[in-house]
Amino acid sequence: MDPNTNGLMQKLADAGQSHLLQFWAELSPEEQADLTRDLQGMDFKEINGFFKNAMETSSSSKQEKMDARMEPVPREVLGSVTRDRECLKEWEAVGLQCISQSKVAVLLLAGGQGTRLGVSYPKGMYDVGLPSHKTLFQIQAERILKLQQLAEQKHNVKCSIPWYIMTSGRTMESTKDFFSRNNYFGLEKTNVVFFQQGMLPAMDYNGKIILESKGKLSMAPDGNGGLYRALGNQGVIDDMQRRGTEFIHVYCVDNILVKVADPAFVGLCVKKGAECGAKVVEKTNPTEAVGVVCKVDGRYQVVEYSEITLATAERRSADGRLMFNAGNVANHFFSFPFLRDVVQKHEPQLQHHVAQKKIPYVNAEGQLVKPDKPNGIKMEKFVFDIFQFAKTFAVYEVLREDEFSPLKNADTQEGKDTPTTARQALMSLHHRWVLNAGGHFIDENGRRVPAIPRDGAAGRVSDGGTTNLKDGTDLPIKCEISPLVSYGGEGLEELVKGRDFHPTLTIDEHGVHELVKNGV
Amino acid sequence: MDPNTNGLMQKLADAGQSHLLQFWAELSPEEQADLTRDLQGMDFKEINGFFKNAMETSSSSKQEKMDARMEPVPREVLGSVTRDRECLKEWEAVGLQCISQSKVAVLLLAGGQGTRLGVSYPKGMYDVGLPSHKTLFQIQAERILKLQQLAEQKHNVKCSIPWYIMTSGRTMESTKDFFSRNNYFGLEKTNVVFFQQGMLPAMDYNGKIILESKGKLSMAPDGNGGLYRALGNQGVIDDMQRRGTEFIHVYCVDNILVKVADPAFVGLCVKKGAECGAKVVEKTNPTEAVGVVCKVDGRYQVVEYSEITLATAERRSADGRLMFNAGNVANHFFSFPFLRDVVQKHEPQLQHHVAQKKIPYVNAEGQLVKPDKPNGIKMEKFVFDIFQFAKTFAVYEVLREDEFSPLKNADTQEGKDTPTTARQALMSLHHRWVLNAGGHFIDENGRRVPAIPRDGAAGRVSDGGTTNLKDGTDLPIKCEISPLVSYGGEGLEELVKGRDFHPTLTIDEHGVHELVKNGV
Repeated sequence: MDPNTNGLMQKLADAGQSHLLQFWAELSPEEQADLTRDLQGMDFKEINGFFKNAMETSSSSKQEKMDARMEPVPREVLGSVTRDRECLKEWEAVGLQCISQSKVAVLLLAGGQGTRLGVSYPKGMYDVGLPSHKTLFQIQAERILKLQQLAEQKHNVKCSIPWYIMTSGRTMESTKDFFSRNNYFGLEKTNVVFFQQGMLPAMDYNGKIILESKGKLSMAPDGNGGLYRALGNQGVIDDMQRRGTEFIHVYCVDNILVKVADPAFVGLCVKKGAECGAKVVEKTNPTEAVGVVCKVDGRYQVVEYSEITLATAERRSADGRLMFNAGNVANHFFSFPFLRDVVQKHEPQLQHHVAQKKIPYVNAEGQLVKPDKPNGIKMEKFVFDIFQFAKTFAVYEVLREDEFSPLKNADTQEGKDTPTTARQALMSLHHRWVLNAGGHFIDENGRRVPAIPRDGAAGRVSDGGTTNLKDGTDLPIKCEISPLVSYGGEGLEELVKGRDFHPTLTIDEHGVHELVKNGV
Repeated sequence: MDPNTNGLMQKLADAGQSHLLQFWAELSPEEQADLTRDLQGMDFKEINGFFKNAMETSSSSKQEKMDARMEPVPREVLGSVTRDRECLKEWEAVGLQCISQSKVAVLLLAGGQGTRLGVSYPKGMYDVGLPSHKTLFQIQAERILKLQQLAEQKHNVKCSIPWYIMTSGRTMESTKDFFSRNNYFGLEKTNVVFFQQGMLPAMDYNGKIILESKGKLSMAPDGNGGLYRALGNQGVIDDMQRRGTEFIHVYCVDNILVKVADPAFVGLCVKKGAECGAKVVEKTNPTEAVGVVCKVDGRYQVVEYSEITLATAERRSADGRLMFNAGNVANHFFSFPFLRDVVQKHEPQLQHHVAQKKIPYVNAEGQLVKPDKPNGIKMEKFVFDIFQFAKTFAVYEVLREDEFSPLKNADTQEGKDTPTTARQALMSLHHRWVLNAGGHFIDENGRRVPAIPRDGAAGRVSDGGTTNLKDGTDLPIKCEISPLVSYGGEGLEELVKGRDFHPTLTIDEHGVHELVKNGV
């Protein structure tokens, strides 16, 4: 095969990417065919344009300006589980009603592989080591199932919550296969819709596409904001329209506590008439590495922690809270008309962000090099980039310990966002559900375990100068409640009230189980 | 030697502790002499009384009652760095004036060994691996020195802050020796006063003292609340009176961020006319394992996390904060008359707390057994047990990231309260001091490093669904500022304003140093 056929060489030359063929003569016929196919599928003009725009945006030092332009989320836009407790029941009721009318869909961002987790399969297939050994996908599926049931029971109608799952080229096949093998975890197959985000090449600082081997470009998913392009070109918007979807809850696969299609969140946004909404947790430490939802020049935006000065991060309101404290947890609400407009009108206006990376590359001698400092960029859009287009917005502040524990790193790493922290966060939540429903836990000697274990999933302040309990072994109580039994802690009283349990306690659709280990 | 001499056997028999002599015949003459000396020094009647009272208090289930009796700290008793910012300068000025009049002493609780840290010497001698390799003792000593200087400069008088250091039988000699070898870190030797807390035997659940070897009792320090007895019987109260001490700041050795003799804390307590005060950090997660300062039956008290129900821990005020959120960090203020009264009048009323422990013991066959579950108790008093006697009280709420990072565990453990977290907390604070004084940090490529590093010492929420910066290596900026240069961030502008620094940055009494590593 000759790359000159069909003008590929010229196309590359025009785009300044001729180096991609520098090892052509050394490739096997199969490799040549693969490379040709890959190159023919690419719109170099568009890619070069992305690069130019992204680099320009990135190099304009926006930090100085940003601080002066930022405003906190206005109180009337905010709903808080701690400060608006009296509204919670109403929001939940409104959300559940929307669900019962099959107006709510969920959209899962699951394009990433578990690279930092140390696995090569999609993160949603990860088992964090719960007693049930359920994967993230299964937990989320069962929450959807339970919510459908709750809505059906309350409103006495059949309903469904379609689940749109965005994968990437790397995770599509294994994800679909996993769902199929598991019978969609009890969901209707037709209500689980897979689609695929795009990929973009990694580029060096001069805009040259990087080769990861002599015949293969270095490609990466185009960021979770690749969602909007994919929603359009894979027909998802049309599918939503067909189903009559009015509200969409978008979330990331890695949060084990995620309240999929959270009725309170949906209800709050509906009540406030918001086109777009963000669930947040309170940022309490100025140097916490989290983006914050705020207003910039009158439009809503997530400002990343790297974009603000310390002085701004440390600003406080009169009530003592950080002024910019709406910590983004990648849980968003969109009305369907808003999402459709974004996809059909606004998406092309979104700029790619530049992420400097250490990108393995083939050098001029054809050797693979693994750089030890960043040598190029990946271009990504972010799911929250579209907040700017919203005319009406709502922010829902929830408790971190109840709703947010992402799985990012392997257990060998520094102990943040690991399978262990995810597992403990879930079991701590379920432990609290049992206590609040009137149950108790007892230890091997039959004594009641204190409600607050000494080393709970939460970061502890320490024992503050006391020295007792040092030999305690009260790690988080092992307790897991199936989403099929309870979506958010409801419905447990009849199962646990007044009862004493030995951990490990599991409650599932078959009943209440205590698994007492023999020996120590 | 015969234990019958001087009635020791009878004394033991009367106390129900005759088993302590069960291996007498097997001991060498030296061991017999040591054991006799140890036993003769003990007041078994008192110890048995302690045991009886402690077990009674411990077994009366106080949890049920506690919840109904607890009230939060009233707002007028509270001073907050985030909510009362306008008062901070005045409190500081008042405190500094007291210091300039030599009315303020500090009292260090340093009776513990670094067992959980994996070292056999006193914790204060630990080097957490700062660029300067200063120990906790040195850091604290230099803060005292600097504070004396600041007070002297402002008020143009000589002054001193006496430093009372409570050790235990296990740490006394090595602590004194360490200070002596280091010339008291520049402090006047006469202003550093060592004294020693008492020891109590470990006992089994039947009140029998445990033998840790055939001729040796299992002994442990009597808790940091052993302070009050020691203050009396070691002449410390008299020494304070002689020096004209009016206010005392008490703290634990393990907090690397401790603001020794903090003028703002002292000033707040003085302004509020408090006999007793507690510095706290806000508890934000209901299941955080920290004791909280609150009122019980109208008296101030620290209620331990193990004593309250989840429902109480989860209660919130109208402003959304946890109702019981005054997290104890073992930083206390006492007026001298209050402390004297406690020592001279109230101390005997304090009950010991029971800490169930796994205590190695010699069994009837003379073999050493290391139990794998608790087999006995240690009896301890807590430093905060005397809050109940205060007629006037003040609570000072400060920021955890600025003032509290205790060193408890070795780096091999689960990553909480380790040398690494302590080191990073200090460097993060000093990094912020430099930024707020107008300095900047630049990376190896000459670019300014964002104010908020990606993986700061603080727990991070995660990157909230964005995927950029994954390859970042922006660990906490390495930056250390000697306490001899700045006590609390003051006085740095002339050194750093408008300057760009490569980490590692150190600032000490000799100047500003940048230590740039060669290569990577």
